[in-house]
Amino acid sequence: MASNGDSNVTNRDAFRQVVVNTLERRLFYVPSFKIYGGVAGLYDYGPPGCAVKANVLAFWRQHFVLEENMLEVDCPCVTPEIVLKASGHVDKFTDLMVKDEKTGTCYRADHLLKDFCKDKLDKDVNIAAEKAAELKHVLAVLDDLSAEELGEKIKEYAIVAPDTKNSLSDPYPFNLMFQTSIGPSGLSPGFMRPETAQGIFVNFKDLYYYNGNKLPFAAAQIGQAFRNEISPRQGLLRVREFTLAEIEHFVDPDDKSHPKFSDVSTLEFLMFPREEQVSGQPAKRTCLGEAVSKGTVNNETLGYFIGRVYLFLTYLGIDKDRLRFRQHLANEMAHYAADCWDAEIECSFGWIECVGIADRSAYDLRAHTDKSGVPLVAHEKFAEPREVEKLVIAPVKKELGLAFKGDQRMVCEALEAMSEKEAMEMKANLESKGEVEFNVCTLAKDVTIKKNMVAISKEIKKEHQRVFTPSVIEPSFGIGRIIYCLYEHSFYTRPSKTGDEQLNVFRFPPLVAPIKCTVFPLVQNQEYEEVAKHIAHLLTAAGISYKIDITGTSIGKRYARTDELGVPFAITVDSTSSVTIRERDSKVQIRVDVEEVASVVKEVTEGQSTWNDMLSKYNAPSAPDDE
Amino acid sequence: MASNGDSNVTNRDAFRQVVVNTLERRLFYVPSFKIYGGVAGLYDYGPPGCAVKANVLAFWRQHFVLEENMLEVDCPCVTPEIVLKASGHVDKFTDLMVKDEKTGTCYRADHLLKDFCKDKLDKDVNIAAEKAAELKHVLAVLDDLSAEELGEKIKEYAIVAPDTKNSLSDPYPFNLMFQTSIGPSGLSPGFMRPETAQGIFVNFKDLYYYNGNKLPFAAAQIGQAFRNEISPRQGLLRVREFTLAEIEHFVDPDDKSHPKFSDVSTLEFLMFPREEQVSGQPAKRTCLGEAVSKGTVNNETLGYFIGRVYLFLTYLGIDKDRLRFRQHLANEMAHYAADCWDAEIECSFGWIECVGIADRSAYDLRAHTDKSGVPLVAHEKFAEPREVEKLVIAPVKKELGLAFKGDQRMVCEALEAMSEKEAMEMKANLESKGEVEFNVCTLAKDVTIKKNMVAISKEIKKEHQRVFTPSVIEPSFGIGRIIYCLYEHSFYTRPSKTGDEQLNVFRFPPLVAPIKCTVFPLVQNQEYEEVAKHIAHLLTAAGISYKIDITGTSIGKRYARTDELGVPFAITVDSTSSVTIRERDSKVQIRVDVEEVASVVKEVTEGQSTWNDMLSKYNAPSAPDDE
Repeated sequence: MASNGDSNVTNRDAFRQVVVNTLERRLFYVPSFKIYGGVAGLYDYGPPGCAVKANVLAFWRQHFVLEENMLEVDCPCVTPEIVLKASGHVDKFTDLMVKDEKTGTCYRADHLLKDFCKDKLDKDVNIAAEKAAELKHVLAVLDDLSAEELGEKIKEYAIVAPDTKNSLSDPYPFNLMFQTSIGPSGLSPGFMRPETAQGIFVNFKDLYYYNGNKLPFAAAQIGQAFRNEISPRQGLLRVREFTLAEIEHFVDPDDKSHPKFSDVSTLEFLMFPREEQVSGQPAKRTCLGEAVSKGTVNNETLGYFIGRVYLFLTYLGIDKDRLRFRQHLANEMAHYAADCWDAEIECSFGWIECVGIADRSAYDLRAHTDKSGVPLVAHEKFAEPREVEKLVIAPVKKELGLAFKGDQRMVCEALEAMSEKEAMEMKANLESKGEVEFNVCTLAKDVTIKKNMVAISKEIKKEHQRVFTPSVIEPSFGIGRIIYCLYEHSFYTRPSKTGDEQLNVFRFPPLVAPIKCTVFPLVQNQEYEEVAKHIAHLLTAAGISYKIDITGTSIGKRYARTDELGVPFAITVDSTSSVTIRERDSKVQIRVDVEEVASVVKEVTEGQSTWNDMLSKYNAPSAPDDE
Repeated sequence: MASNGDSNVTNRDAFRQVVVNTLERRLFYVPSFKIYGGVAGLYDYGPPGCAVKANVLAFWRQHFVLEENMLEVDCPCVTPEIVLKASGHVDKFTDLMVKDEKTGTCYRADHLLKDFCKDKLDKDVNIAAEKAAELKHVLAVLDDLSAEELGEKIKEYAIVAPDTKNSLSDPYPFNLMFQTSIGPSGLSPGFMRPETAQGIFVNFKDLYYYNGNKLPFAAAQIGQAFRNEISPRQGLLRVREFTLAEIEHFVDPDDKSHPKFSDVSTLEFLMFPREEQVSGQPAKRTCLGEAVSKGTVNNETLGYFIGRVYLFLTYLGIDKDRLRFRQHLANEMAHYAADCWDAEIECSFGWIECVGIADRSAYDLRAHTDKSGVPLVAHEKFAEPREVEKLVIAPVKKELGLAFKGDQRMVCEALEAMSEKEAMEMKANLESKGEVEFNVCTLAKDVTIKKNMVAISKEIKKEHQRVFTPSVIEPSFGIGRIIYCLYEHSFYTRPSKTGDEQLNVFRFPPLVAPIKCTVFPLVQNQEYEEVAKHIAHLLTAAGISYKIDITGTSIGKRYARTDELGVPFAITVDSTSSVTIRERDSKVQIRVDVEEVASVVKEVTEGQSTWNDMLSKYNAPSAPDDE
């Protein structure tokens, strides 16, 4: 009876239209600033959407922050340029854009090329096999094309501006950060943060201290992030402002084991490793423990978070058959990353990246160490001092002074800056030849170094601690994307009692449902309304959110209204001593004493009991009798 | 034993220094981007600060949103110019600024004048009485001075740039909004919202519909707001990015009664009405019900929110003797506002506005109606149609055409736009004199209107509904300011056991405390650690946040550490069957079975029982025996 989207594009679009209409009509979300015509890529969460979001975030805090004793922080959105210069966002956080040469309208270059290829493949029935193969190849490598290559393809295929058919400029990079200026001088550029992670990295030193100078530990942040998309589309999936929930788990690069990995190692779910993608195989149900032990997933900590993310998403109500963990291909991954997996959820737009889980190695902490000069490092104190072999480079200043006069300091510094490999080569050469040519880059010339000018040796030293830059494992959650996919996975329709219309239902689990129950007096009379108010009072005391509906509308219509909001339980007051509780999806009812109703709803919504427990306890009628 | 700030400025500064040092050292908050030298007016909440903030916001949601069934929404921070043009922020959200004429450094003009006057009054012991009176007057009227008047005073007193002693520019307005650009074209200016309220106003129509087209109802929003302060000072009190929690309560302007006003009408607290301020009297303990019935507070709904805000702040732990409700003076209030009260909290910086509670009448909805052309109005359907007298102005187009030719349309529109008063005057004049002079502002001239050119009458019409713009009552909470004042009100010091140092304590109520309890094994041994872990497990199951401290530090030091974080209860494991629970402020301990400890802490922190209940139940030792 339930209808869901299927692989047919038209059906998918029709399904999405029904879901989106329902969501907007019931104010789960609406385009922002609608009375002024709206702004692309900005959405408001209305009352039920806001409640769903608050529930998802509260569960995120419970499932990740509390469970793992993470250090939660809250940093500003306004960020000075230097921080995002260090992180690479000022230089590299760009999309390629083309402009309509006459009107100046902007488009994402890759979107135009993608649309062209797809359109041609879909509609040109007489397309030559060779041409079709070429277009498919373009689609496959789209994300790897440089500005020049994209420009060439746009010219080759004579792609024009879709709205005007005017010709297009060459593609050029557009930085996706919203820029602003901090303070009144106009001299301090700033940006609205494109992610929350940097706020954690710059606080590493303080957080490490707060954690008693111990690794591993994780910090977490929930907050707004901003991306000035060139031309947002796909509704809630590509927006200009969104809520991120990010975890930065700092770990010793030499030991990425996780003490709780065994808690998740037996989980099985769809995984899509690099090799399967490249060789054209589908995602396969895989045991997480095996994926880690075989090395498909780089390490236990990364594996642990993949497992925890799987549990998080499925508890929320994401369909496990439309959830997969896809490993980044080599060309998708940043050069510094050790491994990276995306939790992708299938919805009417296709497979959507909703959570990224990356082992970013030491990249971020090193970048901020370099830029700020503040060492963001961890220390491992040895129980006993350890003997380690250390390179010692000792320039002989007197000899260097005689030979190089005013250049002495530069030469001296260059010698001291040699890597172990360079130094040992020089040592060998000095011993065999007596002198070597040596490039001093600060002088921009070679100089001749003689044997008496520098002593190079390896010495055994006692060390009391090891100093290192921790690795960062980062699970990063796009909350809006998760919620949108959850809406699609939770939505179904069923015929009304009379069969003449299709009714919409969201099958949210109680954890997520915007309101846990509704209270209806069956008919409008003062006695029943008093009972309804008494029940409302008991629900408030039990901490259960509810809505009272005392309109005179038919009970069937009121059930339909509450089903469409995804409210799991409806309490109907049809006597002053006992009432019925109806479960949304089965429509089965039980009869419960007025004084017990709040505790029954509380137990079932908070998970101490199941609905089936209540069915047997309260001896339910076998079939729904009201709809 | 407890030491608090007093009225002496030096003591206040010293007190603040101790509090702020503790807060920063324990990572309640730190300057943002510290490793890059920080940015004035931007702060990060570290783990305990973030937890306190989450607790305050959760309680706000419970106390306001759930209790009153408010409609919570969540709108973006990025806001297009037109919205903030309509609200008046683009034109009027400014501070007056002066620049150092040589270096370009910016200062707030009123701050410089204020500092000059205060400094002179404080330090110049030989100041003439007349001069002193003049400076005091300047301080009193500071907020009312225009740019010109401020500039004159700065010249008159020869005030120069404080850092360089260079001369200063004339004062000019600086807009406090962070500006940005939406989309890639550079043609859509936008701002980071300076308040969350506008997101609610522009959604009024949808929210009214969601509420079943019924008034009154309230919408609420929690979120970030941004003000690009010229020169932020006062730590957390004046920042460039902050969390606001705002309520917009929409009500029929003809009926501002509140059904639940009696719940708060007997409350008594410090109120500081306009008259008392002007006549130099102090704030007085006042009964809220009387303040409303006497008309000191404009209406019941405004009064209801004042009472609810009082309860909210005092539940959090704000000292009721350092909390007052101050009415805005006539010159502070916007022309459209009906009444406005600030909840002010006294801290080491003086009395600080932390919550504004304003009856903004119909201003905001009208402004957006005018700008967008979408009527943001409410309807009151009459049970029976009502007969109302309606003004009818019927211009006689033929006669007007003959007389005014091409100007006919303008004259016609001007006649139709007359107010009731103007029209009835014209009617009287036409009847007595036969013609009148009439100013047509769109033509910028007077024309002569004769009796045959317009018919003016009053007719009885049947109306089925009343259409009106609702009034808005807006309680607006500066969450960061409330939290900072709470820190100061909660902080005290007491001597250590040995008496050789002062220990810091935050006396947070359990509701606010960042962590509800700590678990310490008394000595480092595996047996006790196992018990501690078992208790931790029971606490997690009960939903109580905790921290385990298994370091070998002395128990006294561990108590001090946890007192300084404001943790209300410490559980010490000193046997495998029973443990002690120590209350932070009294230091009194009770002994409880291991299996009961989680439920005891839960009951006391969630308010089902008091600590005193537990003292009698568990027969506490009469004095602390461990510190």
